[in-house]
Formats: sequence, structure tokens, C-alpha cells
Amino acid sequence: MHIKKQRLLTPGPTPIYPPALHAMMASDVHHRTEDFRNIYKAALADLKEVLATSHDVLCFAASGTGTMDAAVSNLFSRGDKVIVCSAGKFGERWAEIAKAYGLEVTLLSAEYGQVVTPDRVEAALKAEPATRGVFIQASETSTGAQHDVRTIGAMVAKTDAIFVVDAITGMGTMPLDIDNWGLDVVIGGSQKAFMIPPGLAFIAVGPKAWKHAESANLPHYYFNLKKEKKSADAGESSWTPATSLILALGEALKYIKKLGMPQVIENAQQLAAATRLAAVAVGLELFAPDSPGSAVTAIKAPAGMDSGVIVKEFRTRFGSIVTNGQGSMKGKIFRLAHVGYFDFADLFSIVAELEIILNANGRKVTLGSGVAMAQKFYMDAVAAKAAAAVTPGATATA
Amino acid sequence: MHIKKQRLLTPGPTPIYPPALHAMMASDVHHRTEDFRNIYKAALADLKEVLATSHDVLCFAASGTGTMDAAVSNLFSRGDKVIVCSAGKFGERWAEIAKAYGLEVTLLSAEYGQVVTPDRVEAALKAEPATRGVFIQASETSTGAQHDVRTIGAMVAKTDAIFVVDAITGMGTMPLDIDNWGLDVVIGGSQKAFMIPPGLAFIAVGPKAWKHAESANLPHYYFNLKKEKKSADAGESSWTPATSLILALGEALKYIKKLGMPQVIENAQQLAAATRLAAVAVGLELFAPDSPGSAVTAIKAPAGMDSGVIVKEFRTRFGSIVTNGQGSMKGKIFRLAHVGYFDFADLFSIVAELEIILNANGRKVTLGSGVAMAQKFYMDAVAAKAAAAVTPGATATA
Repeated sequence: MHIKKQRLLTPGPTPIYPPALHAMMASDVHHRTEDFRNIYKAALADLKEVLATSHDVLCFAASGTGTMDAAVSNLFSRGDKVIVCSAGKFGERWAEIAKAYGLEVTLLSAEYGQVVTPDRVEAALKAEPATRGVFIQASETSTGAQHDVRTIGAMVAKTDAIFVVDAITGMGTMPLDIDNWGLDVVIGGSQKAFMIPPGLAFIAVGPKAWKHAESANLPHYYFNLKKEKKSADAGESSWTPATSLILALGEALKYIKKLGMPQVIENAQQLAAATRLAAVAVGLELFAPDSPGSAVTAIKAPAGMDSGVIVKEFRTRFGSIVTNGQGSMKGKIFRLAHVGYFDFADLFSIVAELEIILNANGRKVTLGSGVAMAQKFYMDAVAAKAAAAVTPGATATA
Repeated sequence: MHIKKQRLLTPGPTPIYPPALHAMMASDVHHRTEDFRNIYKAALADLKEVLATSHDVLCFAASGTGTMDAAVSNLFSRGDKVIVCSAGKFGERWAEIAKAYGLEVTLLSAEYGQVVTPDRVEAALKAEPATRGVFIQASETSTGAQHDVRTIGAMVAKTDAIFVVDAITGMGTMPLDIDNWGLDVVIGGSQKAFMIPPGLAFIAVGPKAWKHAESANLPHYYFNLKKEKKSADAGESSWTPATSLILALGEALKYIKKLGMPQVIENAQQLAAATRLAAVAVGLELFAPDSPGSAVTAIKAPAGMDSGVIVKEFRTRFGSIVTNGQGSMKGKIFRLAHVGYFDFADLFSIVAELEIILNANGRKVTLGSGVAMAQKFYMDAVAAKAAAAVTPGATATA
């Protein structure tokens, strides 16, 4: 009946920054040439710059799970004792990978929607001084909850263990001071805050992690961090790189640098905060109200309604692609994303759509009431920024 | 501060249908090959099908003004008496072209925001029986007003004059029964309802117009309708065609055929109707309330406020590109487009943005109130469609 534009409102893949998409058209290039080496070197340097770290930042043609695998297979040995903090589907993935490689896992799990608190990690580290690693998600994409990696990082830093952080949806949605918070290994993926399609996985490796690598003895071939570091230092990738994605990454990083990574993070944080207000305004409950992250907001379906109906109506009525809950949360929650190339206009329309869907399914919601909360949040945020800019003492050039 | 996606909400260029954009990447093709001839023939056939006409439909690498020029230079002779109906900037363009070729113009002009009524055309035709042509805009893009081309077409059909209709923003936003309404020449452009970039101009030429061509003596070369018809019949274009745009057109026409041209028109009509309700709900006045078209809605800026401020704030705050008034209307109106690839999600966000801009400039508007009108319109339209589908007597498969 109506034109419906497909809009991705999912926490990965996220909407593609158009100039990055267009840059992919230039991928008729050979990877072992000076031209491409320059492109590759610049992309890695820019990636390091936006992550604000002195650690080595490496890139693989893989999905994020690839560098999760690399972290385990390159930095540990069979039988190593490790702690896995699991607060959802991706926490479970850390446990699966660790077990696949024969590590001895102490699982600290939190219910979906909750987080693993720092005190539990501290207690587990004390209970097992031989712990070689602690694994966690900065942001647990399946529930929208966010871990306190700063506090936990400080605890792990006092031990011989390394702190391995899946920041696939954490990068660009929360501050991550890799060097100063003891984040020894940090993992990212292209299809999140980097605004390009899936296919590239990133890994930042710090000195403590490299030291682990020296004694690690697990088998690996494709995901060889030491070899990849050598290649990267020479402006190359060890294996054939995903050239079109590297071109896209280069373009997207220019945009992220122009905005500034703190602004990219603030953008996601503001969209997430406005989404929470709008969801509550239309009578819905948040799934992770205590530790909400800014990558994605999980919202409970109203009582008696399957969240799959909401997800389906977003698609069939409007062409909007949002995600259902994962695993045991399927049918109970739906998730609206903020990580990456999203703006307030996206939010205004998705909330307007949600209000219509709720009404069409017998939930009385005042049309425009959730949108109004998001609008008000936007106006207050702009006003606060303007006020800060004229306050004596505030840095005018900040 | 925030991510701002650039969104075109202008009546041309209009947003590009993504698969059409992607199709342009295949333009590494030679135009004098069987492969391209097949593409070209299919595009012209599909164009003719969506325009639902038996007339010849020709395509030029040009903007719409090119085929306006072609209509005059191919179908008239120096000194021919013609009537130009002018209700805005594009009506004025007809007069300019006619004068440039030495035609004798009787100008029937209406104030911006008004239309030329059929009775005036009828009177002018009676006053000058030797009139050879009547020129008009189906939809006057500069004001959003729509002419009654059906009634006027019936009047012109009784005379020896031909009726030349600029439907550049009329196609896909209003019914146009080319064959049965006496629309002897109808002009379109690629960057409107066809959802692709500017660069292609269309012209549908009927038998009465071809008869005019026989006696016409104005000079022309590039825009040679007779030559172009011969070429088109052979699956070619006379001159080098804009291959990338033809590829895009082919892809967009597949989509338009899948939706159905009546649905494309209804989509624009519903967005326009919802926009009018939303504009009034936020306290604004429509510029062409009596003859509103569905290509674009012109809205008056509030008293004491330059519409340029609104246009600028749409861009700087949100990245949304909307148009100011043209000519003497600059500063007084702004225009929101519906022609082409627009959907309700676009409308919800643009109205939410407008509410914010009005509030930020001292006009008290209840946040969400305009959005709610658009949401309610959408829900009522969907309900009406569903009711019609179950009403006995309604065609179930319609």
C-alpha cells in the first residue's frame, strides 16, 4: 500500500555511512601494491587514533567472533584457569570458545538483563590466584546491559591475569580508556560504531597480553597475532585483506575523526537515554534498567504480547528492521539500536512507529507522547550544550 | 554535536531508490550493443506501461526543461498563437521558452498559490480560435498547487490547439489519463517520482501533437522528436544515452511496477494529506489550500519569521534538506516534498523536527502534536483500506 523504506535499526549490521559504501566501489585494487599499503596503514593508524590507545591495533578479515577466538588461541595454554563474566548470549560465547580450547573456566553468570558486578570478579580472583585471564563484554548486545569494565580492569590489573574485553558494541557507545583502565585485549567489529558492513574484526593488544603470548601454546594459524603485528608494522595484512571493507573503513574513520570519538559516544548515549524515556512514556518497561548501555536498548513487550509481533509489524508496516530478543529472551523483548550511524530523526520515526504498533494491537498509547519525550530530551541536550559553551570556566574550544 | 544524516526532502532531486543507485555501478557498458539495446527498450516499455498511455514515450539525456524546449521547438512555428497558464515559477518558464522561439503568447497568470481555472482557458480559447497550443503545469512545483488538467484537456480537445502538460512533478502524484484526457504532450523528469538522479527527461507525444509537428518550422537539432521516435522504435537513442541513468531507471521502474503506479500516486497523496493536517496542527498555514497538489506542500512561515531560518535549521540541526520558496516566495514559504521515494517514517521525523524548530524559535507548539496528526492519518488510512478489502462489492484482488 505505502512505500516502505528498509531501515536498519539493529545493533549490527548498523546503517552504513553512505560515503563509506561508495568508497567500496574503488576496490578494484591489488592488495600488494604501494597504493593499497598506504590505504591500509592509514586505516590502522586512524583506528588506533579513534581508540586512543598506544597498544597494537590489528585487523582481520573475520567477524568479531574471529578475534574473540584469536584472543583465546594466541594468549592462553590448555588448562589455563580463566574467569568468564557472562550476562547474556555473548558472555556464553566467551565460555564456549574458552572451553573449545580446553581452558578451565570459572563462570560468573548474571541473569539476562543484569550484569556481573565487580565484587564477584574480585572474589573469584582472590579465590584463584593462578587465574590467567578474565573475559567480559563491555556491552552485552543481547540484553543492552553494560559492564563496569573500568572497575573490573583495575582489579584484574593487580593480578597476573589479563583482561580480555569484547567491546564489539562497546566501542563508540561508552568511554573505554584502553591504556589506563587495564584493558589488555579489546575486540571490535566493523559493522558496529564503524558504520560499515560486517567482515572486519579488530583487536587491540597491550604489553601484558603480549607477555602472555610468549608462553601460550594453543594451536592457531589464520589468527596469528604476532605474525599479524609484524605484517601491520610493514603496512600489510598477513593474508588477503578484505579490500572493499578496508576502503570503507578508511572513509568511515575520516568521518568519525571529524565528529570526534567522544561525540560519537555521546551521540549513542543521548539516543539511548532518549529511547529509555520514550519507552517508559508509552507504558513499556526497560529490560536492563539498572545498567543500561548505549549500544542498544532492550524493551519488554507488553504483558500478553509476543515481542515477535512488534518486530514483525515494524517490518511489514514500515520496513523498519529491529531485533527480537536472543536465546531465552526471544518473544519477550525487542531491541532498538543506537550504536553507529543513527540520529535523532531515526529515533523520532521509530518511536512514532512503535506508538502506532502498540495502538493497533490494543494498547492505548497517546499518539505522539513518546516522540514528545525524545524531542524534549533533544531540546534539553542542545540547551545544556549551549549553556556549557557560555559558562565561564568551561573550555570554549572543547 | 550529534550525528546528522543528510535526508533529501525536496521535490527534486528526490531520494534515490537504493537498488537503482546500485544499478548505476553496472554502467561500464557500450550503448551501441545488443545488451544495452535490450535494457533501453525495456526501460522505455516500462515507462510507457507505468504512464498507461498508447502515445509515443521518448527519453532524452537532459533535465525536464530540455523536453519543455523540445515540445515548443518541434511542434510550433514562429508566430504561432499559444496560451500559457502560469501559476508560478514553472509557468513562467513556459512563457520564457515560447517567447524565446518567437511564439505569440497569451499569458493567463494566477497569483503564486492559486491556479488558472478552466473557465479562463475556455474564454481565452474562444477569444482566439487560431490558438495552436495551451501550455500548463499539472503540478506547479514552486507553490505545490495542482491544475485541473482533466477539465482543461477536454476544452482544448475541442479545438485545433494541442495541450502541452509539464507533469514533471505531476507524474506519480496525481492521476493523469494521458490518452483520454486530451494530454497531447506530457513531460516528465527522472529525479521526481522515478526515484533516480536528475539527467533524463521524458516526453509522451500523441497523434494530435505529431500532426502539429508536420507543419512546424522552428529550428532544432538535439531535441528532434521525429528522429528520436525512429531511434526509439529501433531500441536506440539518437545521441549517446546517459547509460548509468538508464540502468537506474530500469531498476526503479521494476519497483514502481511492483508497487503499481496507482499506489505510488496514493502514497504521495496520503503523505501530502497527512502533512497538511500536521502543518495546521502545529499552527501553520498552508500556502495553496484550495488546490493542493501531492508532489510538494508549501507551508507559510509563521508571521515575523523568515522561512529561510526554518530551512537552515532543518539542515544545521538535523541534516534535513527542505526547500525555501522560489522567486518572490523566498523567505515566505518552505516546502516539504512527497513525490517519489518517501514514506511515513520520513514524515514522522520531519514533523518532529519542525515542532522542535518552531519551539526553539519562540513559537509554542506542543511537542508531538503534529506527529500525532500524521500518525492518526496513517492509522485511519490503513483501517479504511482494510475495511474496503472486506466490503462486499469491493474487488478483493484490487
